[in-house]
Amino acid sequence: MSIKAPRGTADLLPGTIEKWQFVEDKIKDVCERYHFKEIRTPLFEHTELFQRGVGDSTDIVQKEMYTFEDRGGRSLTLRPEGTASVARSFVEHKLFGNPNQPVKLYYFAPMFRYERPQKGRMRQLNQFGIEVLGSSNPAVDAEVIDLAMTVYSELGLRSLKLVINSLGDKESRDNHRQALVNHFEPHRDELCGDCQTRLRQNPLRVLDCKKDRDHPAMKTAPSILDYLNNESEKYFEDVKNYLTMMGIDYTVDKNLVRGLDYYNHTAFEIMSEAEGFGAITTLAGGGRYNGLIEELDGPSTPGIGFGMGMERLLMALEAEHREIDTNSNLDCFLVAVGEEASKKAVQLVHELRKNGIQADKDYLDRKMKAQFKAADRYQAKYVLIFGEDELSREVINVREMSTGNQNEVPLTQLIEHLQDTFSGGEKQ
Amino acid sequence: MSIKAPRGTADLLPGTIEKWQFVEDKIKDVCERYHFKEIRTPLFEHTELFQRGVGDSTDIVQKEMYTFEDRGGRSLTLRPEGTASVARSFVEHKLFGNPNQPVKLYYFAPMFRYERPQKGRMRQLNQFGIEVLGSSNPAVDAEVIDLAMTVYSELGLRSLKLVINSLGDKESRDNHRQALVNHFEPHRDELCGDCQTRLRQNPLRVLDCKKDRDHPAMKTAPSILDYLNNESEKYFEDVKNYLTMMGIDYTVDKNLVRGLDYYNHTAFEIMSEAEGFGAITTLAGGGRYNGLIEELDGPSTPGIGFGMGMERLLMALEAEHREIDTNSNLDCFLVAVGEEASKKAVQLVHELRKNGIQADKDYLDRKMKAQFKAADRYQAKYVLIFGEDELSREVINVREMSTGNQNEVPLTQLIEHLQDTFSGGEKQ
Repeated sequence: MSIKAPRGTADLLPGTIEKWQFVEDKIKDVCERYHFKEIRTPLFEHTELFQRGVGDSTDIVQKEMYTFEDRGGRSLTLRPEGTASVARSFVEHKLFGNPNQPVKLYYFAPMFRYERPQKGRMRQLNQFGIEVLGSSNPAVDAEVIDLAMTVYSELGLRSLKLVINSLGDKESRDNHRQALVNHFEPHRDELCGDCQTRLRQNPLRVLDCKKDRDHPAMKTAPSILDYLNNESEKYFEDVKNYLTMMGIDYTVDKNLVRGLDYYNHTAFEIMSEAEGFGAITTLAGGGRYNGLIEELDGPSTPGIGFGMGMERLLMALEAEHREIDTNSNLDCFLVAVGEEASKKAVQLVHELRKNGIQADKDYLDRKMKAQFKAADRYQAKYVLIFGEDELSREVINVREMSTGNQNEVPLTQLIEHLQDTFSGGEKQ
Repeated sequence: MSIKAPRGTADLLPGTIEKWQFVEDKIKDVCERYHFKEIRTPLFEHTELFQRGVGDSTDIVQKEMYTFEDRGGRSLTLRPEGTASVARSFVEHKLFGNPNQPVKLYYFAPMFRYERPQKGRMRQLNQFGIEVLGSSNPAVDAEVIDLAMTVYSELGLRSLKLVINSLGDKESRDNHRQALVNHFEPHRDELCGDCQTRLRQNPLRVLDCKKDRDHPAMKTAPSILDYLNNESEKYFEDVKNYLTMMGIDYTVDKNLVRGLDYYNHTAFEIMSEAEGFGAITTLAGGGRYNGLIEELDGPSTPGIGFGMGMERLLMALEAEHREIDTNSNLDCFLVAVGEEASKKAVQLVHELRKNGIQADKDYLDRKMKAQFKAADRYQAKYVLIFGEDELSREVINVREMSTGNQNEVPLTQLIEHLQDTFSGGEKQ
């Protein structure tokens, strides 16, 4: 039996890859406009980074990581999410010392989570994400949300829902934490095993539990919003005001708590509301993590970012019937007939390409008719016809496929002729 | 102590990433012109793929792979090279049944090899590669080499050496193999342990040995070129003729055998001859592998490709003093003074960005002078100055930094004004 790609992974092939390229180009364009720079970090990190940076009590760290020992006995882990790696890099390369603050970074990166694969959930998934490090200005929270919404809207998505919440600062969180413990303690035995542990380690995450979500105590649980101190409340108001100024609609959801330990203040998720999108509707999620850099032994530095699933983004585009052109639209296909002409054709195609013209030819010794068919399949704009007669007279026939117009062009003028042709068109 | 990136891996940060982006964009442009399509395969594969597709007797498989078990007990391996994964994908998705033949693919992909890190040798390295599957036309061999050389020359590299060889077809290889065994057998005891194994498993690879390369029997070893049958010899002649037609210089090196088991016919390497480039001079290597698809349980399908190290390409550009601009050249930086103007500025920057204009502002509540300094560091082309006076009069001052010219523009006309300004320039 032949070998398949590992479960939960996918190949991206021609016919699909064009959609990814289109979406990535659009995202890069938005990032550039918002003045973000790309960062790339290694695919694996020391396991300790995620234990400390994502949090030992999270599902990701406890259940979903690809962790292994390398041949030198180091425990390494394939990156399950993007923020910890960027934060590690920020500390290691002392980017906090860079005069350009805040540091605004974006990344495209595969992530790895050992989960049960289903639609919209892969073991190797691809994320676009951004991180802004070094500013605790609520305008940055709005900027980050704005960037995500702009990506979606410029790609044509309309059925989106933005949900925001505030987790407050440390004081607010501590007070809320105590209130949660007091609230759930009488129901401890009725909660799932995970939640009993969470109640001790990180009670906020009880609100996130999928198993216990219908327990009556969930509905009456104290909201973080009732425990925000004045500063945290003002911060949240500022973020909301900026979103309103930007014309960005949002809903406040006091139960939005995010699975990662290091979030504070703003948390947000963007969901697809497109019909038929499927059960998992979250397209992107993010928030502020002012304690993370310190947790990784860097100087106290505020940060905020989001991760956006690329697979889900493409699913949402499909659900909203946003078609992306995956056609080939080759500029020139050279049809050569006869052994000598075919050999010379190799050189001609080489010269066209060296002079900036997209060109291809047959490499299967096909007959003329089959070569024309190949040109059709590639949707060639121009077919260059080159037989023994043309070879001997040092000319070539250039046929425009949309009109059927054909010109005989001396070989010495071919490049110039085609360059003139294409400089009038949309491709160079 | 803070956590570092794992040994043999690197972060790519702003200031460096721009070079990668520039080089990748150029390569994608060349690939498009040569009518190649991108493919992406998972970062890890079933370990068996590399055992079968790269070859059990190779150093890569024996010593250098990152192999681990996932939580379901499967043996997975981080991709050590690109060809086996592309070939697996070609078989799994039955690309041999696609009417567009040959299938011409390119990839950018991180590879993982557990080696001793040194300059130009990383544990996570980045490769650009191409594969052409489905044609055994020698013109394709030339096309593949041509593409690699075009990438280098268009990036400005001049000190290159192209070395080619033929490993012949199966008959030629079998005859040569026997001659090699006969030649080395009397010296078996003088060879290293690895070579003693190779002599049994794959005697061609004895010629590749770094330990034994000074053994006198190496110099007098029978050359594959003396064992090529007529068909293989004609194939090699055709490839060389095409290269000559394309104006591509090459040297034949009969000792170029490549470390991977599945190569036949054309093998090639491209080396840097730039002064101070370092000890490892190979920039790219590739060749034909007509037996690989069958080895992976696909139908007999010829193939050829190469892998090009991105880190070494960037080193070569540096060694040849090809500078790549890493400047920021921000279009607009908004300097806002006063609390109300600063708030309104958040909205203005949002509107500029939504209308296609690259813009940024201060997010650190800096004083005006420090904001101007930030604009300078970003090499902003235009600084937009917005204080309480401008806010009340609903105008903004637009200063062109190269000339010092300044215009007061009504806020309602700002977007149009800047769009006009930039549509005359090089950025949209």
